[in-house]
Amino acid sequence: ADDDFILGKESKGGTVQHGSEFNMKARVRLQPRWDYGDLTTETLGGVTSFATQSDLYIRRARLEIGGNMTKNLTYGFVLEADKSDQKNVGGATTKLHYAYFNYKFDDAFGVRVGKEKLPYSRVSLTSSSKQLLVERPFSTEAAKKFFGDYYQTNVMLHGKLAGGMFNYYADVADGVNGGANTRGGPALIGRIELSPPSLVEKGRSDAHLGKGQHLTLGLSYGTQQGAGSATGEADYTLQGLDLSGHWQGLTAQAEYIEMKTEPSTGLVTKPKGWYVQAGYFIPGLNLEPAFRYENFDHNSERADQTQKITTLGANYYLKGHSMKVGLNWVHHKYDTPALAKTTDDTSANVVQLQTQFYF
Amino acid sequence: ADDDFILGKESKGGTVQHGSEFNMKARVRLQPRWDYGDLTTETLGGVTSFATQSDLYIRRARLEIGGNMTKNLTYGFVLEADKSDQKNVGGATTKLHYAYFNYKFDDAFGVRVGKEKLPYSRVSLTSSSKQLLVERPFSTEAAKKFFGDYYQTNVMLHGKLAGGMFNYYADVADGVNGGANTRGGPALIGRIELSPPSLVEKGRSDAHLGKGQHLTLGLSYGTQQGAGSATGEADYTLQGLDLSGHWQGLTAQAEYIEMKTEPSTGLVTKPKGWYVQAGYFIPGLNLEPAFRYENFDHNSERADQTQKITTLGANYYLKGHSMKVGLNWVHHKYDTPALAKTTDDTSANVVQLQTQFYF
Amino acid sequence: ADDDFILGKESKGGTVQHGSEFNMKARVRLQPRWDYGDLTTETLGGVTSFATQSDLYIRRARLEIGGNMTKNLTYGFVLEADKSDQKNVGGATTKLHYAYFNYKFDDAFGVRVGKEKLPYSRVSLTSSSKQLLVERPFSTEAAKKFFGDYYQTNVMLHGKLAGGMFNYYADVADGVNGGANTRGGPALIGRIELSPPSLVEKGRSDAHLGKGQHLTLGLSYGTQQGAGSATGEADYTLQGLDLSGHWQGLTAQAEYIEMKTEPSTGLVTKPKGWYVQAGYFIPGLNLEPAFRYENFDHNSERADQTQKITTLGANYYLKGHSMKVGLNWVHHKYDTPALAKTTDDTSANVVQLQTQFYF
Repeated sequence: ADDDFILGKESKGGTVQHGSEFNMKARVRLQPRWDYGDLTTETLGGVTSFATQSDLYIRRARLEIGGNMTKNLTYGFVLEADKSDQKNVGGATTKLHYAYFNYKFDDAFGVRVGKEKLPYSRVSLTSSSKQLLVERPFSTEAAKKFFGDYYQTNVMLHGKLAGGMFNYYADVADGVNGGANTRGGPALIGRIELSPPSLVEKGRSDAHLGKGQHLTLGLSYGTQQGAGSATGEADYTLQGLDLSGHWQGLTAQAEYIEMKTEPSTGLVTKPKGWYVQAGYFIPGLNLEPAFRYENFDHNSERADQTQKITTLGANYYLKGHSMKVGLNWVHHKYDTPALAKTTDDTSANVVQLQTQFYF
Repeated sequence: ADDDFILGKESKGGTVQHGSEFNMKARVRLQPRWDYGDLTTETLGGVTSFATQSDLYIRRARLEIGGNMTKNLTYGFVLEADKSDQKNVGGATTKLHYAYFNYKFDDAFGVRVGKEKLPYSRVSLTSSSKQLLVERPFSTEAAKKFFGDYYQTNVMLHGKLAGGMFNYYADVADGVNGGANTRGGPALIGRIELSPPSLVEKGRSDAHLGKGQHLTLGLSYGTQQGAGSATGEADYTLQGLDLSGHWQGLTAQAEYIEMKTEPSTGLVTKPKGWYVQAGYFIPGLNLEPAFRYENFDHNSERADQTQKITTLGANYYLKGHSMKVGLNWVHHKYDTPALAKTTDDTSANVVQLQTQFYF
Repeated sequence: ADDDFILGKESKGGTVQHGSEFNMKARVRLQPRWDYGDLTTETLGGVTSFATQSDLYIRRARLEIGGNMTKNLTYGFVLEADKSDQKNVGGATTKLHYAYFNYKFDDAFGVRVGKEKLPYSRVSLTSSSKQLLVERPFSTEAAKKFFGDYYQTNVMLHGKLAGGMFNYYADVADGVNGGANTRGGPALIGRIELSPPSLVEKGRSDAHLGKGQHLTLGLSYGTQQGAGSATGEADYTLQGLDLSGHWQGLTAQAEYIEMKTEPSTGLVTKPKGWYVQAGYFIPGLNLEPAFRYENFDHNSERADQTQKITTLGANYYLKGHSMKVGLNWVHHKYDTPALAKTTDDTSANVVQLQTQFYF
């Protein structure tokens, strides 16, 4: 149980409550991180190879404010300074990450308005504070950029039916953005989630720390037609399928995602990828070994575009997700050196050590 | 009355109080927004015309912190990520919007130090959370850039006499800014406001939601002499006159503003503009139809520089200014295509749908 | 005593407490500032001289969040928009300034992880809210950039022995940063502080406002070997020595710092500097006259690289460090016009008037 963590229970932020309905909660999240391995490339005598680098930085730094304005009206406002001090990234500039409000008419129907995630990809929808492995998969990260920004201003209708056995999300957003984009309609994105009775997930997490069980099938679809300018348009289509489940300490999930861009003139591109991941939380020890295998074809319309990624690691929980440490070893295998952006390397190895402080 | 709003009374943020004097209040404000219409231009075969675009973004996103350090010493600290996800603007970078403290010796005399608004233009001094129409006028928005930034670090003496029948503001700031600006004095800006007895405004608002009454005449004047560098100086002068009033649900105001730039060599420019706006809040319905007519001459020293803007719209209040929706139709008429930055269009239409979430 | 300040005691922010261990404190700090004098240069007829400029801006604007997650686990999260509206600097962009957590096993041993100061230079380690003079010395400011950024992500072991008579800090960080920096080890930085019994400092401050006494000798050393890329590496070494003390109203400190860069090919550079400063807090009056003399040799491996800075000033405390005003006159004397970045000036004068609002 929660109480068994060496530093005690998970904490949930500082809260100000006024009256029976209004509250405002503030939370801080930090993920100090150390990466070591083939993080960069070096060119010597015309040969580009991976080069070893060490990098200490803040993977995520967040100030999260949220709560209830009324019983049914909730809000979130999150500032981020992610990747502060990361090499090749730099900057500690603060950005608006989330800014939304959500009105729930009842369980079956609510509307969310503002800057929040678009509703596709299980692993991407799950909070980065509750991931099984240090980083999310590469294919789903690529998919997050498919309609412009995953975290863009959007309007989403959503609801739960039959006690959560059926969830739906119907979203509209600007999608593929840019000032010159005067043509084409909005991005339309839908997702449904199905769970058997008694296997409904209480809150989306990829690491439930030994408690409860769930099984969920998710189907996502997104499209934006004729988006572009007078000088060129394209149709964008995304399809995703994901299956996730856990039974007490055992957790596993798999996901397939496919993105197609069809320009009015020129070649179709079709990146697609899948991964499977699993872990086991050892109660008492509070240690969770985990792995992921991923196959990401950067463009299935061309040959030799596949990157295979194997990740092995473990999490140690000192205070649930409020204070934890994750250590991962990530191995990349590329079809060709060009895909790896080198002239002679087709594999790379990185070690990632991440701490999470979250209250 | 307030209590009649469908989601209840206006709320005022989360407050922490220590002792009898110190308090700190945090508020979040969001204005998710959808614009549709002639938002951009497109060039085809050498002809530039307005082009239809749809844009979903966050017009204003604010984290507001403020309160009392002592009874007479108040402060404000506001971060903004305005225009996040807006097309042709981009970015969600967070900036410091206000940062000031204010010490009130008594009603008749106080001093405010820090980054805050310069004291001119009624509609600009009124909080963007309490506007009658979705956007402020174009002429006063242009005036906000006249002395560099409207929200710049400044020192202001201010006070209320005769129970608010006479208010004064005397301000000094760097004004027209820039590293090369080594010559010339500071910007000096003054404003006075006059109200008849029993028609003093309690707090500046362009939408009082059916409560109370006021009538205020405002006169503003600002000047900066010989500002510039060794290679060129100019004198800057701004004059403004505004009249605002409301009687229960009826609200109306008008404003004239004129800006003159006189360079030591070269041509004088003199933009000037005026607008009149009015609205009526229908109690019970909580609906407020409103309009504005504006005439903005971008440079009255030259011919054919006038833009005329007609705005029609309505606000619906779900929880006073804490939760409301505004819908506006804005029609622009330009003297020439060049003024509209097109080659053949002299008019444009935009629809604006804005929600405000503010607690 | 504290209670004698004209606006009362220092205040310490707004705090939310949950249970016996968890708390979250929010503070705001503002330093509105006016500089006047030789702030810039002007080129006329091929001659570059200092030019008089006036500059009103916010020297520091901070939102500080911190507290305890558990009794021994503390955290800090600080956003800054320093130098907002400063000429030649511009911008009011908000950045992450600090983001760390600290776990104290006991007084003798703790570990701090995250974005915080590197442990060298007494005056730099002391909070900018508790400086004796408006700006820190030039030599120590240069030293803050020696290992990349002073405020970078790092891991620090630290502890106090013998009731604080001996303090140690052992730090590791990426140091000299940059994407191309694939070679060389991390920056390793250590510092020790020694105090006689009964002269241990309670909290680091350069202005104790008449209370208590301390005497502390600090020694700092930092090194980074072979840092660089395939096309060039260098060894970096920093040494510092500082002595600080106060006896009731009298405060004084001196510091010497030296930085050596030894590239694998090319010339060694060795900036070095020292300063001495002192002040006296007049109780009752709450006025503190102070001065500093500094000698900063920008590169002691070359001739004529020395800048001498004399600062005279005074602080007036209205509410301890929560509300105070400082006025400084700063006189620069340069060995050559080139060092001053002019063609004919070798001296410059600046007046600085700073207010601090901090709760």
